[in-house]
Amino acid sequence: MSSLSRVRPGRPRLIPNIGVGTPREQVLEAAARLFTSKGFAATSTREIAEAVGIRQASLYYHFAGKDEILATLLATTVRPTQMVVDEIVTLVPPERVETALCLLALVDIDTLARVPHNVGVLYQLPDVVSAANLDYASFRQAHSELTEAYADLGAQLATRHGVTAPPRALGSMLIQQVEGVITLRADGNDVDSDRAIEIAGGCLRLCGCDQAEATQAIRRATALQDQLRLGASAVTPCPTPVR
Amino acid sequence: MSSLSRVRPGRPRLIPNIGVGTPREQVLEAAARLFTSKGFAATSTREIAEAVGIRQASLYYHFAGKDEILATLLATTVRPTQMVVDEIVTLVPPERVETALCLLALVDIDTLARVPHNVGVLYQLPDVVSAANLDYASFRQAHSELTEAYADLGAQLATRHGVTAPPRALGSMLIQQVEGVITLRADGNDVDSDRAIEIAGGCLRLCGCDQAEATQAIRRATALQDQLRLGASAVTPCPTPVR
Repeated sequence: MSSLSRVRPGRPRLIPNIGVGTPREQVLEAAARLFTSKGFAATSTREIAEAVGIRQASLYYHFAGKDEILATLLATTVRPTQMVVDEIVTLVPPERVETALCLLALVDIDTLARVPHNVGVLYQLPDVVSAANLDYASFRQAHSELTEAYADLGAQLATRHGVTAPPRALGSMLIQQVEGVITLRADGNDVDSDRAIEIAGGCLRLCGCDQAEATQAIRRATALQDQLRLGASAVTPCPTPVR
Repeated sequence: MSSLSRVRPGRPRLIPNIGVGTPREQVLEAAARLFTSKGFAATSTREIAEAVGIRQASLYYHFAGKDEILATLLATTVRPTQMVVDEIVTLVPPERVETALCLLALVDIDTLARVPHNVGVLYQLPDVVSAANLDYASFRQAHSELTEAYADLGAQLATRHGVTAPPRALGSMLIQQVEGVITLRADGNDVDSDRAIEIAGGCLRLCGCDQAEATQAIRRATALQDQLRLGASAVTPCPTPVR
């Protein structure tokens, strides 16, 4: 079958399309809304197509199927953070690991707070987990790598403060704290910058920082986060502390 | 229709019943397994009844419907902890608020680690939240009260350590940390006593405790938890610290 939106651009859609963005973005937006409100298994590609106002066949022009749509949505909850992990480690000297951890947490909180329809709630839906396929495995892999980044930075900081938690347990606790954003949003709470700072401060205390050290790390990390938002070229590396 | 298991006790069940416990317990067990594997909306009372080996009509003798089964399952994730909140506050003097918080966390972790089929994953299923009814509202209320208990103890401890997090945010962070048990179990991890102690230690650090204070609080709290397990009558109150 032909792709309605491409091959016959002038032909009217089934339902007047009032969405914004490319058709692909509109499919993701509608799928996110349906998956998070009805569940993954209970949503058909036909319903997604209808919600966008395209034919089901056109949807398959953009995605191989529902699994690929799900994987794409799940990736939006980890990819923006993953993309800056290396940059954070480059930007912040190892002596300032508290700033690096805080920046990672703030970027991750920001990612989870912005992702449309709080798609992080999909992580543990029974029908998502049982629909486990190659795409889902690739999300789990990305999520594991992110947890390891937390474990690595967290363990360095914890060791400095005499906190004896094993790195793996610490990594789980840190990402669990950050993913509180998903819970907050699911419960109808707004995650503003004050809340983000509270959560990032919690991550620092989990690794043994006191209030003074946490406050300083948050100040430095929020400044670096503003620079990251302006684009990598404008970023000034965090100075190495003078001992 | 008559209740098969009561009115005709001798009549064979539809499927030989190999479950343990009362029929009511078996219904809860089967429902927990089905809700957490297939989802709430996708599971019918008929399937639950078939899994137990009773007729659908017999199920309605025990529960008004699927909503009541869900509410009963959700209650198992908070009630055992709620039941000891007042006891904890009575047992532990206010000067030992770090021990009280640690004990609350350990009891809650234990509750979540034991609950069959990790039914805590049901908290945020879209079909559970959208099926919101009076029973579900009563669970949300119980969960809120538990969060307030964390907020109250956590804020007292945080204030002592100069941690400035608002009580409500702190309460959310603490319960989020403890509910990491649900995430760990969903990811196939075992939550043993070492892991429980790691998480409880994390809660104490979230409120500003250092490693030494956390270690001491964990020692006192685990001793009190053992006493609580033996029954309230055997519990020796935690001594008031000599200043």
